[in-house]
Amino acid sequence: MAEKKMVEAITAMEEDFAQWYTDVVKKAELVDYTSVKGCMVFKPAGYAIWELIQSQLDARFKATGVQNVYLPMFIPESLLQVEKDHVEGFAPEVAWVTHGGLQPLQERMCVRPTSETLFCDFYKNDIQSYRDLPKVYNQWCSVVRWEKETRPFLRSREFLWQEGHTAHATAEDAEARTQQMLNVYADFCEQVLAIPVVKGRKTDKEKFAGAEATYTIEALMHDGKALQSGTSHNFGDGFAKAFGIQFTDKDNKLKYVHQTSWGMTTRLIGAIIMVHGDNRGLCLPPKVAPTQVMVVPIAQKKEGVLEKAEELRQILADKGFRVKVDDTDKSPGWKFAEQEMRGIPVRIECGPKDIEAGKCIICRRDTFEKIEVSFEELADKVAEVLDAMQVEMLERARAHREANTFVAKNMEELEAIFAEKTGFVKAMWCGDRACEDTIKEKLSVTSRCMPFEQEELSDTCVCCGKKAQKMVYWGKAY
Amino acid sequence: MAEKKMVEAITAMEEDFAQWYTDVVKKAELVDYTSVKGCMVFKPAGYAIWELIQSQLDARFKATGVQNVYLPMFIPESLLQVEKDHVEGFAPEVAWVTHGGLQPLQERMCVRPTSETLFCDFYKNDIQSYRDLPKVYNQWCSVVRWEKETRPFLRSREFLWQEGHTAHATAEDAEARTQQMLNVYADFCEQVLAIPVVKGRKTDKEKFAGAEATYTIEALMHDGKALQSGTSHNFGDGFAKAFGIQFTDKDNKLKYVHQTSWGMTTRLIGAIIMVHGDNRGLCLPPKVAPTQVMVVPIAQKKEGVLEKAEELRQILADKGFRVKVDDTDKSPGWKFAEQEMRGIPVRIECGPKDIEAGKCIICRRDTFEKIEVSFEELADKVAEVLDAMQVEMLERARAHREANTFVAKNMEELEAIFAEKTGFVKAMWCGDRACEDTIKEKLSVTSRCMPFEQEELSDTCVCCGKKAQKMVYWGKAY
Repeated sequence: MAEKKMVEAITAMEEDFAQWYTDVVKKAELVDYTSVKGCMVFKPAGYAIWELIQSQLDARFKATGVQNVYLPMFIPESLLQVEKDHVEGFAPEVAWVTHGGLQPLQERMCVRPTSETLFCDFYKNDIQSYRDLPKVYNQWCSVVRWEKETRPFLRSREFLWQEGHTAHATAEDAEARTQQMLNVYADFCEQVLAIPVVKGRKTDKEKFAGAEATYTIEALMHDGKALQSGTSHNFGDGFAKAFGIQFTDKDNKLKYVHQTSWGMTTRLIGAIIMVHGDNRGLCLPPKVAPTQVMVVPIAQKKEGVLEKAEELRQILADKGFRVKVDDTDKSPGWKFAEQEMRGIPVRIECGPKDIEAGKCIICRRDTFEKIEVSFEELADKVAEVLDAMQVEMLERARAHREANTFVAKNMEELEAIFAEKTGFVKAMWCGDRACEDTIKEKLSVTSRCMPFEQEELSDTCVCCGKKAQKMVYWGKAY
Repeated sequence: MAEKKMVEAITAMEEDFAQWYTDVVKKAELVDYTSVKGCMVFKPAGYAIWELIQSQLDARFKATGVQNVYLPMFIPESLLQVEKDHVEGFAPEVAWVTHGGLQPLQERMCVRPTSETLFCDFYKNDIQSYRDLPKVYNQWCSVVRWEKETRPFLRSREFLWQEGHTAHATAEDAEARTQQMLNVYADFCEQVLAIPVVKGRKTDKEKFAGAEATYTIEALMHDGKALQSGTSHNFGDGFAKAFGIQFTDKDNKLKYVHQTSWGMTTRLIGAIIMVHGDNRGLCLPPKVAPTQVMVVPIAQKKEGVLEKAEELRQILADKGFRVKVDDTDKSPGWKFAEQEMRGIPVRIECGPKDIEAGKCIICRRDTFEKIEVSFEELADKVAEVLDAMQVEMLERARAHREANTFVAKNMEELEAIFAEKTGFVKAMWCGDRACEDTIKEKLSVTSRCMPFEQEELSDTCVCCGKKAQKMVYWGKAY
């Protein structure tokens, strides 16, 4: 059977999660590979998810006073080198432009891997007085990092993102904005992507090159691996001192600004796939589903069937749903399998008998539940089902995370857990870099964050047994 | 006076149009220069105009079935070279990436100046059957062209644009899409930007590198120079043959696809400035004004004034207008000058006496007309004034173009006109490249297009006197 073939072509996630992921991104037609090594094409189905992420995240930004700008994609080498930690972090992985037209450049430039240096160079002239503060700017763009190993959405040489860059009069204002944007990210992940996240601070080892503090939201994928899903950095006045960004304050004194930056990327699409997907393919949360409802006419050649399907589409479109009719000449079974692969949240089945009885069938992508509903009640029921999916997908992901979050009180326990399982492990830490290095080396796991919601699991560091300072989440990361 | 100083800082357009333009883009805070030569920063006021252009143009695209995608920003050199005319057109003006991280690349890559070659490389694998056609894809991105002389919005080394790339089963379908998108562009310019355009075809000399036919919309700026505002290209099957993009048609035969591409860029912002601006600064058509209405409280320290201003703002915001209150501690006169500089379409003045009388003043940016209106009628009146501005700005621009469009029947007339005036000149042409070259060399003007609305001005070519084939618009171009 044709529909079976389509499903069989996906590897089961229990068998080989990495291959399942690759199969889904290809079969759901989200991306394609290109002649440009490590770079990919976002096909319509993949890019449309990004458009929905972008518009909803942008609205949340603007509600907090963010203004969008656009800065150049090139950074002159001398500019990248101004802040010492920053250049060390990024120089090994940038793409260098050396020629413009037929001439070699006087100074080579890299394609931005991130734009802190460009924003600093801009703010240096744009900020003069306390009246010019705060600056709360953001840009939507693509960035390039010359990765050796790449995977669609998760790690590619070019990816799409937003990068916020702000400047403030005081350290307190900068810290407040850093936390505010982390909260925007966490709320967005949970309410829009239906992905629960752990909010916390990165250890010094894992923080951003040039930051005083990096905050992160960490999500757990279906295979138990962690995905860093958004970060927010407080730079203090480090960049300001390196670039000379000063302002005259109300007291007439010249002071350095305090800065932040924060970013989310197209890897969120990878998170959606790996949190909600199943062996039939992608499963999209309704709020980021380019098509929320697909009407599938059954026995569509019979009189009145296609007309009814179109009528139902129109009713739902008028209510503001993103809805289509699949009137191709494929069999209903093939269409079902295809739409399940593409993660369309709701399918409506409607054939001659249904029409006669004045009803149709709603089928949920997440639970495969089938609900009979009269035409009159269809729009209300679809709204109800989509709302329920959005909520329940988050709940299921949260339950999965809870079931895969463990506690270790000493190295034996930590080793035993990671020998058997993949998930988050909560453990106490003394705060020494040496212990963090030891755990990473021995177990091939990294500290994901020091969560804001601390617990006192024990008094002693899981590694060295000295007095514990912080509870840390450990995990294998993408 | 402070407010005078702000206005005096702009050069009058009659005195030095180029300097007036530069003054406006700086003083209206649309852009800033950067350390990256030839590249600029889009500041919030400038980028917000682009966001409004983008969202409205994108909605028009999607209404015609366009789907958005995203392709890599890099083009391997071998890929750029596949189509002969295309590489000759672009190779001299691209930026080359030669190193990734610390290693030299095996093959250098350019930063895309346009993406025909990438789309062809993608379509080659993505299109197999007539069922896969048409492909009607578009991407929003930035592109790089290594220009020697640059001007904000009009010509910069990096600019933002959209590029549509389509593939069709037949030559007729490709031609229809090429024309359809030109019409979308023309309608968008007139209805949204209030800029009238001449639609026509480029001569072979002026067409896009690799195209069979290039269609264009040409607008006339306030100084009489022409600005190419959007182009739509029909490639026939030239790229398809060069790249091997074939499909199996319904008759089971293998055929080459027919392709198109079409683009509009951030230079449209330059067009808005140069068509609608005046000696007080920018004047934005309401549909692309990030702030459509600014409420200016008069004597704002008096009791109830700021509260009333905020109340008016809320009334207008609830009706869907983009509206703000200027409650800074600047004088009203300063605020008026500043908002005129920034091109905000409508200003509302409201002070203690107005409040007592239950009314306020609406002031139009384009005509400076002042209209007294009661609070109850404010929202309706604002809607009416914004609608009127949108229509009348287009009418005024059209009248200006008509007044600056001339006719020449022979070289003496053509020379005489361009010696005295800058504008469009309509003249007959025999179709020979030699005549086009002669006119360009002698008069430093270029053929803008062969308009779709042809007229028979005379029987003979303006240059050689041989039999005329086409009427051409000539002009000095940006």
